[in-house]
Amino acid sequence: RTVGGVTDFALQFGAHVQRARREGRPVVALESTLVSHGLPRPDNLRVAREIEQTVRDHGAVPATIGMIGGRLIVGLDDAQIEHLAGADDVAKLSVRDLAVAAATGANGATTVAATSAVAAAAGIDVFATGGLGGVHREAAQTFDESADLTTLARTPITVVCAGVKSLLDVGATLERMETLGVTVAGYRTRRFPGFFVTDGGFDLDWSLDSAQQVADAAAARTHQGVSRAALIVANPLPPDEQLDPALHDQTLRTGLAELAERGVSGKDVTPFLLAHFHSRTEGRSLAVNVRIILRNAALAAQIAVAAAPAPAALGFGLPG
Amino acid sequence: RTVGGVTDFALQFGAHVQRARREGRPVVALESTLVSHGLPRPDNLRVAREIEQTVRDHGAVPATIGMIGGRLIVGLDDAQIEHLAGADDVAKLSVRDLAVAAATGANGATTVAATSAVAAAAGIDVFATGGLGGVHREAAQTFDESADLTTLARTPITVVCAGVKSLLDVGATLERMETLGVTVAGYRTRRFPGFFVTDGGFDLDWSLDSAQQVADAAAARTHQGVSRAALIVANPLPPDEQLDPALHDQTLRTGLAELAERGVSGKDVTPFLLAHFHSRTEGRSLAVNVRIILRNAALAAQIAVAAAPAPAALGFGLPG
Amino acid sequence: RTVGGVTDFALQFGAHVQRARREGRPVVALESTLVSHGLPRPDNLRVAREIEQTVRDHGAVPATIGMIGGRLIVGLDDAQIEHLAGADDVAKLSVRDLAVAAATGANGATTVAATSAVAAAAGIDVFATGGLGGVHREAAQTFDESADLTTLARTPITVVCAGVKSLLDVGATLERMETLGVTVAGYRTRRFPGFFVTDGGFDLDWSLDSAQQVADAAAARTHQGVSRAALIVANPLPPDEQLDPALHDQTLRTGLAELAERGVSGKDVTPFLLAHFHSRTEGRSLAVNVRIILRNAALAAQIAVAAAPAPAALGFGLPG
Ligand SMILES: [Mn+2]
Ligand SMILES: [Mn+2]
Ligand SMILES: [Mn+2]
Repeated sequence: RTVGGVTDFALQFGAHVQRARREGRPVVALESTLVSHGLPRPDNLRVAREIEQTVRDHGAVPATIGMIGGRLIVGLDDAQIEHLAGADDVAKLSVRDLAVAAATGANGATTVAATSAVAAAAGIDVFATGGLGGVHREAAQTFDESADLTTLARTPITVVCAGVKSLLDVGATLERMETLGVTVAGYRTRRFPGFFVTDGGFDLDWSLDSAQQVADAAAARTHQGVSRAALIVANPLPPDEQLDPALHDQTLRTGLAELAERGVSGKDVTPFLLAHFHSRTEGRSLAVNVRIILRNAALAAQIAVAAAPAPAALGFGLPG
Repeated sequence: RTVGGVTDFALQFGAHVQRARREGRPVVALESTLVSHGLPRPDNLRVAREIEQTVRDHGAVPATIGMIGGRLIVGLDDAQIEHLAGADDVAKLSVRDLAVAAATGANGATTVAATSAVAAAAGIDVFATGGLGGVHREAAQTFDESADLTTLARTPITVVCAGVKSLLDVGATLERMETLGVTVAGYRTRRFPGFFVTDGGFDLDWSLDSAQQVADAAAARTHQGVSRAALIVANPLPPDEQLDPALHDQTLRTGLAELAERGVSGKDVTPFLLAHFHSRTEGRSLAVNVRIILRNAALAAQIAVAAAPAPAALGFGLPG
Repeated sequence: RTVGGVTDFALQFGAHVQRARREGRPVVALESTLVSHGLPRPDNLRVAREIEQTVRDHGAVPATIGMIGGRLIVGLDDAQIEHLAGADDVAKLSVRDLAVAAATGANGATTVAATSAVAAAAGIDVFATGGLGGVHREAAQTFDESADLTTLARTPITVVCAGVKSLLDVGATLERMETLGVTVAGYRTRRFPGFFVTDGGFDLDWSLDSAQQVADAAAARTHQGVSRAALIVANPLPPDEQLDPALHDQTLRTGLAELAERGVSGKDVTPFLLAHFHSRTEGRSLAVNVRIILRNAALAAQIAVAAAPAPAALGFGLPG
């Protein structure tokens, strides 16, 4: 696409998101890495559609974010989601990759960092995902820390997640969020959820107890004008929906042992451990992962609805 | 407080600060964590009032910052300061806590990070405190680093302090400030002060030798438009007012040994070590702490006065 | 310089850069630390002039950045460059030093961080240098990490370099750039160059294959409005121009061993290792260093030309 002879790389909005913006309706951003890299085919496409439907069922408009042929799209349509779910050349794009990917015409799925940053740039205030990236085990030596944390530190958005996966160093990740000024609040809890399990083993300073209170906290950030960091809403699975904690702990232990034995390191660690969880739990970790994201999509939609200005405040009436 | 049916979380200004802003008079921001958590009762309230008086005595208007019932106030009045000095439910608020604390209606005292960020958002250019937070000992493993450093890296304000407490890893803290682009200058010295002691054991690249020169450096940052980081003015105690260095070193050594013995870790370390200093120095560490903050308040007021536009430049005359 | 009775510390533009800005011609920023601290006299002055000439030969206007008597100048003239090349009181200025240096009337040379930040503030989009600063070996203990990385993370500019020197921890530096969201692309390669050597031993996710494609990536960042981080273009020496890799590896090994033997540490490490390279390679490392910067200046100029709006788009014709 060129404008006045020069290529135009501006954000593009899907038709349903354009309409929602025009009408002042609540929008929830969704990531595409979950679809392209996070879930196995063909479940990934079905789940991507269920996530969008869950957002709609709770009164908001889904905006799945991704890149098609270099175009950075806020609100992929169904055919585009299907493409990212099935194609083999889909790059995993963090914030720093977006411009180069555009210049080279790539197809790409956006990480938590990239989805947050694009959503905020597009004026979307709420984002639902599964788990955040964080500080990797051994990061004291390897310096391997996700760009999710530094991006969230400068991105004013509300992110609903279920904590960070135990594959990471959860304690160090919480310390980094404190250092970087990323707000973390439990949803109806003061324990940080452990993604697959309800309780991740760490205390939180704050609990928010309703979608309205989350929306108030986001409004307070804007009104105060002091911070531009993200508000992380850590939404735990109910205990009866979690992965059995004993199974979780044992699977993690054997996974970490195998890593060491086989000398797996660097970027291979996370896929290796996730596959290990999938096979050792006979698919239960995957089912839990899907429940997490659907629950988070529902809560994110409720928050977006709570944050939306009342129709009267918008200054326009119904078409007469 | 609601505006148009929606809760308004905007900063609120105390009457004395509103008047100072209207009249273009110099203002100095002050933190409230010192009052609520840093000093023991009932000394804390007396000292809080002395700090404000010291700012006034040097020609500026004090603006102590804190939160009452969710309202973030720039310029607490005496009754509000008394409340934060005496209440038991006062949260310690860093920048990331401000919005959630507002949404939940908390009472809170602001840290160095939060006070800096709120002051800058309120248009206040100078802030007096005791010591900065920093990199904790063992942070290479625990990742425990204060949000003060990252906040100062993005907050254009002048902070007068006496360095960082030796309870922290001072060398690592200075490295982090270099990495993060936080300016550090000694006030009439090229040695970084050690809070309780005059000389903290590290060299500085710059010395500023008058309140006017500090004000010039802050003006240069604004005019250049290149950095939005804080300028830390490290103001050492005169040698004859410091804690005896031999006593300091021995107290630190025994404190660190006791920490290890008793297995104290995490958030319990700093209060433990401060209490240890207090008891082992028979209260002298506390008296030194108070001298530090009063000296810093005086210098901060002088800087604010030096930075204030000359009355003629303000474009209004005296009431006739 | 004072304006209305108050000292004015605003950026000053050299006459040639003022003219280029007025005429909408492409400009390339250049650092001065290379001149004052990076190369030995009298070669440094000759090379500084060759770098500027190389930029001109490729169709752009050079803007060497530095400070003279507290004035921060974008586009030093030849006499000013000669002064920084020969004077003994030239401070090495990172971003955090610029304001204090101005207030104290210093002479100074700007690092990669400071040059990037000043250039971006001055509206210059492309900067040519030799190598970036990064994470120091042993930084896990010492916390010694260059402010270049954090500055590049918030500075929207294109930096052409040949990677980072192997004196640093290159792997950790690449991890930090990922964490901080700094874009790194190889120029016609997917291997990160090793400064003195063509291949630094690490893979890159992206290759850009022409000056136009680099310019497109920078345009995409602006159009997308999602990131304000730098785009690092890593431009390797051709294999036949590099320092012999076996000689490089051996020199590095003996240099690191000598460091340990003699107990060299902190700020003395880099000058020690560079002098070691210079003497052990009989000056070849220095010749390679000069080739690197001239090649990078040429590529930076080509990128600036590719990014410049076509004359017609500027809305003014040739003088008639
Ligand atoms: Mn990583
Ligand atoms: Mn901490
Ligand atoms: Mn350093």
